[in-house]
Amino acid sequence: MTIQEWGEDRYISYLAERFPSTSDILGIGDDCAVIPGKKEFSWLVTTDALVEGIHFRTEQIDPKSLGYKLIAVNVSDIVAKGGEPKYAFFTLALPKNSSTEWCKQLCHGIHRACKKYGVLLLGGDTNGSKRDLFLNVTLIGKVKKKNVKFRCTAKPGDILCTTGFLGNSAGGFKALEQKIDLEPSVNRLIQAHFCPEINILEGRWLGQQKSVHAMMDISDGLDCDLRRMLKASGSGARVEIESIPISRSLQQVCKKHQWDANELAITGGEDYCLLLTIASSDFERINRAFQRKFLRSLYAIGEIINSPNRMIYTKNGKKIRLKLNPFNHFS
Amino acid sequence: MTIQEWGEDRYISYLAERFPSTSDILGIGDDCAVIPGKKEFSWLVTTDALVEGIHFRTEQIDPKSLGYKLIAVNVSDIVAKGGEPKYAFFTLALPKNSSTEWCKQLCHGIHRACKKYGVLLLGGDTNGSKRDLFLNVTLIGKVKKKNVKFRCTAKPGDILCTTGFLGNSAGGFKALEQKIDLEPSVNRLIQAHFCPEINILEGRWLGQQKSVHAMMDISDGLDCDLRRMLKASGSGARVEIESIPISRSLQQVCKKHQWDANELAITGGEDYCLLLTIASSDFERINRAFQRKFLRSLYAIGEIINSPNRMIYTKNGKKIRLKLNPFNHFS
Repeated sequence: MTIQEWGEDRYISYLAERFPSTSDILGIGDDCAVIPGKKEFSWLVTTDALVEGIHFRTEQIDPKSLGYKLIAVNVSDIVAKGGEPKYAFFTLALPKNSSTEWCKQLCHGIHRACKKYGVLLLGGDTNGSKRDLFLNVTLIGKVKKKNVKFRCTAKPGDILCTTGFLGNSAGGFKALEQKIDLEPSVNRLIQAHFCPEINILEGRWLGQQKSVHAMMDISDGLDCDLRRMLKASGSGARVEIESIPISRSLQQVCKKHQWDANELAITGGEDYCLLLTIASSDFERINRAFQRKFLRSLYAIGEIINSPNRMIYTKNGKKIRLKLNPFNHFS
Repeated sequence: MTIQEWGEDRYISYLAERFPSTSDILGIGDDCAVIPGKKEFSWLVTTDALVEGIHFRTEQIDPKSLGYKLIAVNVSDIVAKGGEPKYAFFTLALPKNSSTEWCKQLCHGIHRACKKYGVLLLGGDTNGSKRDLFLNVTLIGKVKKKNVKFRCTAKPGDILCTTGFLGNSAGGFKALEQKIDLEPSVNRLIQAHFCPEINILEGRWLGQQKSVHAMMDISDGLDCDLRRMLKASGSGARVEIESIPISRSLQQVCKKHQWDANELAITGGEDYCLLLTIASSDFERINRAFQRKFLRSLYAIGEIINSPNRMIYTKNGKKIRLKLNPFNHFS
């Protein structure tokens, strides 16, 4: 059997069984590892790679955006735990004919993201590569023990929310692949794909709210990541298709090119906004406070239900079946 | 200019300038970053990759050895600071046609090394890859603040030592490349190349000795790594060629195949033993205590001198010029 047939999630489960968490340390299976510190803080550690030909094409993305994105996708994991990013470590494997100018621009992008998100780059490893370009960052963050959020704690009855639009990044990727004309709305999608805005303040604030029961980031698409949350929590979900937040730019571009905006929003991936569940009795209060603080709303897209691993999509109150091609890094 | 012409060390210097260490945190430029904790301990963080076609060939190394080596090379960096390895994070980019059996064997190798060196694997990132295989580990360790060693603190007059034989790994690599017959001595070299033994107890003990002034691991070859130590310390060194420790296996194989054992020992790389400097007045005492504890000796190979960046090789007391091809990951 090949790893493609086995799939990413099954390999991760295999690793998680062989390298189990301990009684006080959370290991494989969430956005970050959580290592308790001596006092009121825990350390968070995550690692995320960008691989040429899988996550990006060098002929599409400029090195500055690539460097920025490399930091941003890792910041997103720390933020998903309610934490604050602190220290980054950067591994590079680079074909030998790469230009120094390209490397410097990559460095500028990393620098920009580190500055924006308050990260110190403290080390790394530079290597040659025969053909493909490979970038990896490990990011260490901190979180108050009482504020750390998990993906395994969604409760039946919770309101399921996101902190941002879904599908923009996937729309940008599709626009690049299909080489469509670069109108302003298309450019905004490409910008979302290259330089995701991480909800760093929102994540920390949501971490402080007791009624936020579960939280994770959406990196592999709503459908895929929500299934992971449900599996970890032993619950199910009902998602209202018409409530999924889709930006005006994505709507415009999808209309013009006859793309399915819902499909991009549900399976696209790389949104890097937060997926969270909130006790239904507290949702209105939390959402009002969120609006006051961030001048925008949370998007309620459904609810957690008491049926393990069951995912129901509804449209105008009626159950529908979706044909989805979930993202698999090995495909 | 290409990155190959620029070279690895110049790119690291470029990064170190743009991402400087802070007043209390040591960042880019040593084996590990050193982040002071609240009490008597500091955190150590290192990251090291193995890249197909640069560090290994899949047709040569079995996945179990590869997994073991991936952990070991990172443990070596923590040990070089006098520290103890604790938590590992593992990134994989894998061609989609890789077999699950290969992946499981890789996992066994990682497991074996983690168990041997007391490391908990706490997370990672699994990805597809278009063609090449990439493996990266970030390893977090701990060290008592008073025991942490640096590469920038070698002092003129210090005795320069290693904790093990040099060139075995390079000999093993050469044996594989030239496909020579697998006699026992050749097998021992290949074993050193695939499964380096990390001096974890030796490193911790040497960290506790005040007279050990500077320490690092030898990963890119004695010549290359010693130059890094000298540059960081603002000093020079005299190395006695005839004192460089070369194993009987390497001597035998080199004699048979007319290889230059000294060249392999000086430029080969991947030895993963320690390079350290000891106050000359204390060398005998430290070496005797080391012998009592580890039933083997340190190898004194020369001394630190008061000429910044100067490296002198001597043979039987006479200066000699060596023609060396230093290792460059981008070549």
